[in-house]
Amino acid sequence: MSTNTNNETMQTVTRRVDAAVIGSGFAGLSAAYEAAKLGKRVLLIDKMPNPGGNSVMNAGQIAAVGSPNQEKAGIKDSVELMKQDMLDAGVSLNHPNLLEKMISQSWDTVKWTMTEFGIQYRDRLTQMGGHSVPRTLSTMNHSGRDIIDPMLSKIQYMPNVKLEMKTKFERFILEKNDENGQDEVAGIEVSHNGVTQDVICDKGVILASGGFSADIPFRKIQVPTFGEKVMSTNQPGATAEVIKESLKISALPVQLSHIQLGPWTSPDESGFGLAPFFCIGAGFPYGIIIDPDTSTRFVNELGNRYERSMAILKMCHPVVCMTDSEGAKHSLEKDLTKLEPTLKAHNSIEEVAEEYGMDPIVLRETIDKYNASVAMGEDEDFGKLLREDAAPLVKFPFYSVRLWPKVHHCMGGLHINSDAQVMHVDGYPIKGLFAAGEVTGGVHGGDRLGSCATLDCIAFGRIAGKNVATFNKKKEGDLHNVAT
Amino acid sequence: MSTNTNNETMQTVTRRVDAAVIGSGFAGLSAAYEAAKLGKRVLLIDKMPNPGGNSVMNAGQIAAVGSPNQEKAGIKDSVELMKQDMLDAGVSLNHPNLLEKMISQSWDTVKWTMTEFGIQYRDRLTQMGGHSVPRTLSTMNHSGRDIIDPMLSKIQYMPNVKLEMKTKFERFILEKNDENGQDEVAGIEVSHNGVTQDVICDKGVILASGGFSADIPFRKIQVPTFGEKVMSTNQPGATAEVIKESLKISALPVQLSHIQLGPWTSPDESGFGLAPFFCIGAGFPYGIIIDPDTSTRFVNELGNRYERSMAILKMCHPVVCMTDSEGAKHSLEKDLTKLEPTLKAHNSIEEVAEEYGMDPIVLRETIDKYNASVAMGEDEDFGKLLREDAAPLVKFPFYSVRLWPKVHHCMGGLHINSDAQVMHVDGYPIKGLFAAGEVTGGVHGGDRLGSCATLDCIAFGRIAGKNVATFNKKKEGDLHNVAT
Repeated sequence: MSTNTNNETMQTVTRRVDAAVIGSGFAGLSAAYEAAKLGKRVLLIDKMPNPGGNSVMNAGQIAAVGSPNQEKAGIKDSVELMKQDMLDAGVSLNHPNLLEKMISQSWDTVKWTMTEFGIQYRDRLTQMGGHSVPRTLSTMNHSGRDIIDPMLSKIQYMPNVKLEMKTKFERFILEKNDENGQDEVAGIEVSHNGVTQDVICDKGVILASGGFSADIPFRKIQVPTFGEKVMSTNQPGATAEVIKESLKISALPVQLSHIQLGPWTSPDESGFGLAPFFCIGAGFPYGIIIDPDTSTRFVNELGNRYERSMAILKMCHPVVCMTDSEGAKHSLEKDLTKLEPTLKAHNSIEEVAEEYGMDPIVLRETIDKYNASVAMGEDEDFGKLLREDAAPLVKFPFYSVRLWPKVHHCMGGLHINSDAQVMHVDGYPIKGLFAAGEVTGGVHGGDRLGSCATLDCIAFGRIAGKNVATFNKKKEGDLHNVAT
Repeated sequence: MSTNTNNETMQTVTRRVDAAVIGSGFAGLSAAYEAAKLGKRVLLIDKMPNPGGNSVMNAGQIAAVGSPNQEKAGIKDSVELMKQDMLDAGVSLNHPNLLEKMISQSWDTVKWTMTEFGIQYRDRLTQMGGHSVPRTLSTMNHSGRDIIDPMLSKIQYMPNVKLEMKTKFERFILEKNDENGQDEVAGIEVSHNGVTQDVICDKGVILASGGFSADIPFRKIQVPTFGEKVMSTNQPGATAEVIKESLKISALPVQLSHIQLGPWTSPDESGFGLAPFFCIGAGFPYGIIIDPDTSTRFVNELGNRYERSMAILKMCHPVVCMTDSEGAKHSLEKDLTKLEPTLKAHNSIEEVAEEYGMDPIVLRETIDKYNASVAMGEDEDFGKLLREDAAPLVKFPFYSVRLWPKVHHCMGGLHINSDAQVMHVDGYPIKGLFAAGEVTGGVHGGDRLGSCATLDCIAFGRIAGKNVATFNKKKEGDLHNVAT
């Protein structure tokens, strides 16, 4: 049961809880909170020194259908429409049952973050790439921290939740169901500072460990071109060990080879960086992307992530995202000095051309043409949905960043049913095992739309937390056969 | 070890061989032959009543670089060029090490089928969709049987190979390596007419069980749109049980959600049918595909399978493939009466229009425009690479079939290294376990080019067979701890 059991002096410690949750991002915190609120003793572990996982690096955006914000703005939206948007982006690889479950409770999910944790959102909705209508709510500081921090604050004071950092999941503890011979998850083995513990979970285990974007050996088996030379936006803990241990107990993976690139990242900074905050808020909706080789546009700046990333990769060199001083005001990071030196300022079109080796005459034509499109309200060249408040690029300084896609999100992962139960290769739910968020697959299919991951994590995190709490795995005292 | 061991009167039979091969298509026969030729005792099993699997339904085509046929025709080809063609079709998801290994020995593979089994190929090469040059050899009758039958004849008389039909693989027999604690494959449990046997394999097990195109529950988890309503070209035995049992022993899958549709199948016949023989040989290279709603062409008839299938599916209704009497002479099935009533003959353009509810005037324009392209030698509309002997469609009767894609090939499967060893989730080869052909993943990536599957199966089948024979799994007598 433990790597240390051979050594008599290194006796394995055994603990007993109702539920263990692996990972402390959106999904893990939501799951732990719901289970704890139903009175269960929850152990919440994270291998990293700081809680929040990738969620703290998130832009604090969440898509929802039927918000009062939509009603106020007169935006017509529906579960069907958002589902179709996600299917279109996901090339219909999405699991419809998961989409329906998640989207139908999308506004409830946002409301829950407001009522339970006091999280606040801006009134104005954003229409992100690939979404048919504005439906994305943004936190006040455009940061996942705006959600993670209040959640953590509340959860840390719950007497029946214990959050343990630098505590690593090692493997599952299984027991066989005498009636059907199926393996069930009885608990997990964890390690902390070299000490191993067996954690027996009377109700079950929830996997909320995220994706594997930073796990080069694992991801490059699924997508060989995403090897050492492609950077990742993710924190270094975004690795595959939980998925691998799940595969070893016959959890079925889905669509592991569908891995998303982020089109808004810069090669001039590490990780997710700050360039995306400029591009998502300002550069893409209020500016243009230019190939420095031709000094022209080449893609719909608000197309889906796959289209944009592939269009940039096809250039075989970084490209440039640029807007003017008015456009730059929409940057999600308001203090543009924080973006230096990745973000550059230019006092003339010639300066832009000089910086990137472009042809100043062609660049001016490109800008003039885009400005004419904005004036007409229609982008004939690339079909970009121009914002009502989009304006011609005229006011200097212009601002620009170089773009090169990075590995951002794993659409594939463990197959779950709509109760967040992890499915066995043979088609039944593995008893005692739940999962939510990026560790699962099937919600986003072939490509994920922006602001749908936060919804995915919180909605299925809650489902997993509530279900683990009410899950009648076995009668009391049935754990006597668990070796320690 | 066996489902029957609880019952004292149903004692499990135990046999001992050097290698067991599961599946009797191209890959399984090639593997069994190579292992047997190296003096090993081989048990070759197939769950179906007749040997050959899907390979007998294959069109008998195999791609090779560097054949004398290419040299004679002055065709410049290279391993790099074919690799690039496969990467382009496979959207670079292909594993480069597998491509290089396979393509570099492609002509050797064809030669081996000639010298060992006397298989004959036509002199003339075919340039199939997605291939940059003509490199595909065809058997005399354009049938996989031309390869399977001679292989079977020879293998059946080898004293150290036993072919057992209606014998189903049930599960792996594992034993633990005392030194590293890793599970190794010691053998397999099989069943035949309700009797279970443990087959201990001193050298190893080779999986050559094909894809899961006919396994609706399994395939629709990976691609939800490929559910009950989509037909398959495959024989009913193309199911996932070998892959599932492999996942249960922690074999790592790759790209399971990449499943190919065949664009040349007809909804008017079951399975693979005969329409593909008409379309591949005649209708696509020497004719046109028409949307009956608009009476116009809409796709490059020689584009890759994904492009063509998706273009047809997008129509939401079956389309029509048509050529004239001259074009129809190129049908791979020469006796066109065998294709009736799926294939229809028409004595005028008006008859074609009448049959499919097309507009006869627009249809005539479509044909005139295509005929003008053929005369010019360039298809400006869809970029089809026109054959040198392509001729205008003028000679009645015209022949046509309705087309609707069917699930045809699983690009994804078990992850192997270039020695055909099945890889464990933790990144090492599972000792004693080999795989070849459609049960594996990574060779074809996101989409498979025509005539590359036969090469894949035979090349890696041979590698697996040779490697299982020379594989030093363990010293003699190490099997004492295998329970029976």
